[in-house]
Amino acid sequence: MSLHGLSLLAGHPGKIGGKSFQAINPTTNTPLNPSFHEASPAEVNAALDDAAAAFAADRARSGADRAKFLETIASEIEALGDSLLQRAHQESGLPLARLTGERGRTCGQLRLFAQLAREGSWVDARIDPALPDRQPLPRVDIRRLLVPLGPVVVFGSSNFPLAFSVAGGDTASALAAGCTVVVKAHRAHPGTSELVATAINRAIVICGLPPATFSLIHGGGATIGIAMVKHPATTAVGFTGSSAAGRALCDAAAARPHPIPVFAEMSSLNPLFILPGALAERATAIAAGLVTSFTLGVGQFCTKPGLVFLVRGPDTDAFLQKLATTVCAAPTGTMLTSGIRDAFLEHRAKVTGLAGVHLLAAATTVIQEARTETSPSVATTSAQNFLAQPTLATEAFGPFTVVVSCENASELVACARSLEGQLTATVHGNAADLAGAHPLLAALERIAGRVVLNGFPTGVEVCSAMNHGGPYPATSDPRFTSVGTAAILRFARPVCYQNFPDALLPDALKNANPLGLLRLVEGQPTRETRA
Amino acid sequence: MSLHGLSLLAGHPGKIGGKSFQAINPTTNTPLNPSFHEASPAEVNAALDDAAAAFAADRARSGADRAKFLETIASEIEALGDSLLQRAHQESGLPLARLTGERGRTCGQLRLFAQLAREGSWVDARIDPALPDRQPLPRVDIRRLLVPLGPVVVFGSSNFPLAFSVAGGDTASALAAGCTVVVKAHRAHPGTSELVATAINRAIVICGLPPATFSLIHGGGATIGIAMVKHPATTAVGFTGSSAAGRALCDAAAARPHPIPVFAEMSSLNPLFILPGALAERATAIAAGLVTSFTLGVGQFCTKPGLVFLVRGPDTDAFLQKLATTVCAAPTGTMLTSGIRDAFLEHRAKVTGLAGVHLLAAATTVIQEARTETSPSVATTSAQNFLAQPTLATEAFGPFTVVVSCENASELVACARSLEGQLTATVHGNAADLAGAHPLLAALERIAGRVVLNGFPTGVEVCSAMNHGGPYPATSDPRFTSVGTAAILRFARPVCYQNFPDALLPDALKNANPLGLLRLVEGQPTRETRA
Repeated sequence: MSLHGLSLLAGHPGKIGGKSFQAINPTTNTPLNPSFHEASPAEVNAALDDAAAAFAADRARSGADRAKFLETIASEIEALGDSLLQRAHQESGLPLARLTGERGRTCGQLRLFAQLAREGSWVDARIDPALPDRQPLPRVDIRRLLVPLGPVVVFGSSNFPLAFSVAGGDTASALAAGCTVVVKAHRAHPGTSELVATAINRAIVICGLPPATFSLIHGGGATIGIAMVKHPATTAVGFTGSSAAGRALCDAAAARPHPIPVFAEMSSLNPLFILPGALAERATAIAAGLVTSFTLGVGQFCTKPGLVFLVRGPDTDAFLQKLATTVCAAPTGTMLTSGIRDAFLEHRAKVTGLAGVHLLAAATTVIQEARTETSPSVATTSAQNFLAQPTLATEAFGPFTVVVSCENASELVACARSLEGQLTATVHGNAADLAGAHPLLAALERIAGRVVLNGFPTGVEVCSAMNHGGPYPATSDPRFTSVGTAAILRFARPVCYQNFPDALLPDALKNANPLGLLRLVEGQPTRETRA
Repeated sequence: MSLHGLSLLAGHPGKIGGKSFQAINPTTNTPLNPSFHEASPAEVNAALDDAAAAFAADRARSGADRAKFLETIASEIEALGDSLLQRAHQESGLPLARLTGERGRTCGQLRLFAQLAREGSWVDARIDPALPDRQPLPRVDIRRLLVPLGPVVVFGSSNFPLAFSVAGGDTASALAAGCTVVVKAHRAHPGTSELVATAINRAIVICGLPPATFSLIHGGGATIGIAMVKHPATTAVGFTGSSAAGRALCDAAAARPHPIPVFAEMSSLNPLFILPGALAERATAIAAGLVTSFTLGVGQFCTKPGLVFLVRGPDTDAFLQKLATTVCAAPTGTMLTSGIRDAFLEHRAKVTGLAGVHLLAAATTVIQEARTETSPSVATTSAQNFLAQPTLATEAFGPFTVVVSCENASELVACARSLEGQLTATVHGNAADLAGAHPLLAALERIAGRVVLNGFPTGVEVCSAMNHGGPYPATSDPRFTSVGTAAILRFARPVCYQNFPDALLPDALKNANPLGLLRLVEGQPTRETRA
């Protein structure tokens, strides 16, 4: 499958000219063809103006139509076949098996949002009928539902070239809500982005949608990204990436004449707490599971456990011993880009150079620099050191974790309370541990979007109940998830219709309930029709 | 009932000292006793630190407990009797009948949120049970619900000393969600604020809640307000007031190390569109209704219709004639403060001084300056003038509206499309008008939070389906309402529990569904229990 290396603007390739760049195969450190051309400022403006026009023209489309569109995108992605996986593998260094799974997740996610859009009750339709005889004042008929916000800008992430990228969760949920989408492709996998964008475009043609329902922009990081956030037509932003970049987008959005929401998923240490009973019973299994979790995807998961807290006791040494053995034997791995590898090594060196931080173990296999490899390692420190040095509570994006030994349970809780916002927090405990763990669990619920018991935080299920979010700086807005069906709520706003005749109401609010939605009528949930 | 003139900090009066101020009776332009003492920076910090501690200590409280608290607040406000109404009347100049109605609305609102908290399904509980046999990977048990954010700062508004103030919609919805609240009293009605705060405090004592569940801060506008928004313990802000003040709070919140959401309801022109058929059939009634609506509360409603658009035609002159006659006979009224009166006069002069803007009519009764009075008036202009002069699309907070004559229907739609975000937009049309009004209605749905047909926007019903919100600058976040039960969603965030034993789950997520909530199980709504 040949790539043209251009932005895809409302169905048309962008112009050649301006700066260009190539993707780098991290396993060989060599550039991949073709060159990709950055969109010009005029092209960025046109993409968003066109997205606004398409949104205005097309927003009466039904949930069933949106569902068909999302399902067609999934089929078209699958129809790309191996060429998509091969290109993603070349650009990211991620194993084909992982990418096959990620493609399944991406298409499953599109189909889940299709179901949500087709069923339709997510619009939270509410009807408070007229009460003409109410005293002292009558009530007029009042109905509301959620409508899409408008054009949404999505930034592809580096670490999930499919599932959190061009047709990932942000795009799927925005399209399901009825928004139009302009994606800024991640520079690390522009070819993968182009392929997925062409699949979306084919789905647009098949479904007869306005071409500007979707556009893909290639460009260098900050300038084009900030321009996309500042464009007056942009109504919301989805982002997964670094704290610095995420905060820059948030600041730009907040400084607009008309501020807009930015849903930035940024950084998380995903602390893991091992309570004494669990350590006594399952030290070996926990150590093995921990290494698997913090080295998964070469540690490049936003839910990677980067901090482990335990109370020093009779089983601590056996646990650390097992952890060290397992880490020593762990494989090296190719990181996504040399930039990510360099940043990881720098951050890890900063942390291991801190007073009172000791390297416990590192994988013994020699890393191959030309393959952009790095190797897993684990450090230890005391709770006192941890509490005194905030650098220990900042994310190292790669296969590294720090075990913090606490003197007692209250120091462990103090560590938990000291943490900033996290995507996840995990506790390992047996029944006796957990019976006394209320202060810890309460502290973790305050700082984390997801609390995991006796498991590991990597692996984010795409389902109704998932919350992939959390207090700042894990995300920019703890009130929303970026994974699971509730992610759609980021891209919608309520509109109220007062005293409308039935014929002029949206179908979701008509008396006959033609869409069969679950609605709140007089505050009571029902699927009934009204006379 | 005697007033101490002090902040109320976790149940205790604040310190005397620092700056003080008195409320002014606008109907006499004389100061009211006692003097009110501004809280010191240390008191502001303590109030929020205490609110955070109370929140951390008390958040396991049940919805039923919160409901009892809200109902007790309502009873205690009612128990204040006439002294509350008298003080509010003295401080605001609002008629006793209006204040009696507003008290009813305030207490009704508290009881509505009590119902919501007691029923409990607003927490949007979701359960995706474990699928141990799923291929290729099993699914662990995943459940989520909404939990309260933390301490919320509420700014009392000038124009609703009860319903949008100390125990108004922001406070009621934040307490219903389980947040603690620190209110900044509006300087125009500090005595009313103190009385309501004492009612809340009595409810805290009766219900045995931590005293710092609620505090009231007196202070001069910007400095103390910004300090409250910037305090690290503050997790969200509710505000009703001017664009300048609202934006300053938004900017301060966005610039925090950890940004927080600000729900600011700021400014709205509430455009009203009169289509030709309606004008032919009901010119007199519409003119009369319009005058009632734009002079209600001396034009000091956030939903006051400040712009009226019509297509010049055979019935225009009769309408304008009737409008002029009605406005000429309209009563003068006392505004809330001399500052609001001055700002109104200044803004009105600016608008009526614009090229092509003509004063159509003004009430003929002589205004009494010493009573802080102003009088209703109406101006006219052309659509061409309107589109060329953005000042015409800025809010004049007082009894004034501008009628914009359009040459044809497409110019009317162009005017609609030119507008910034609004709380409401209204259309008057007969069946024939509305059959052709899709472009107009679609444009209005884009810019407004509530679209009203054949009615007037003033009068905001407190119910499930209400949306009192809208795109910027009507509010800072169009995704939320500040009136009606959905207002609670501003102050909550999801938390996910993964692989928790039933006993450790919150009641809302337990298998037995002990609270009888409507929950999403496997994505399907149900009140059933699980085995």
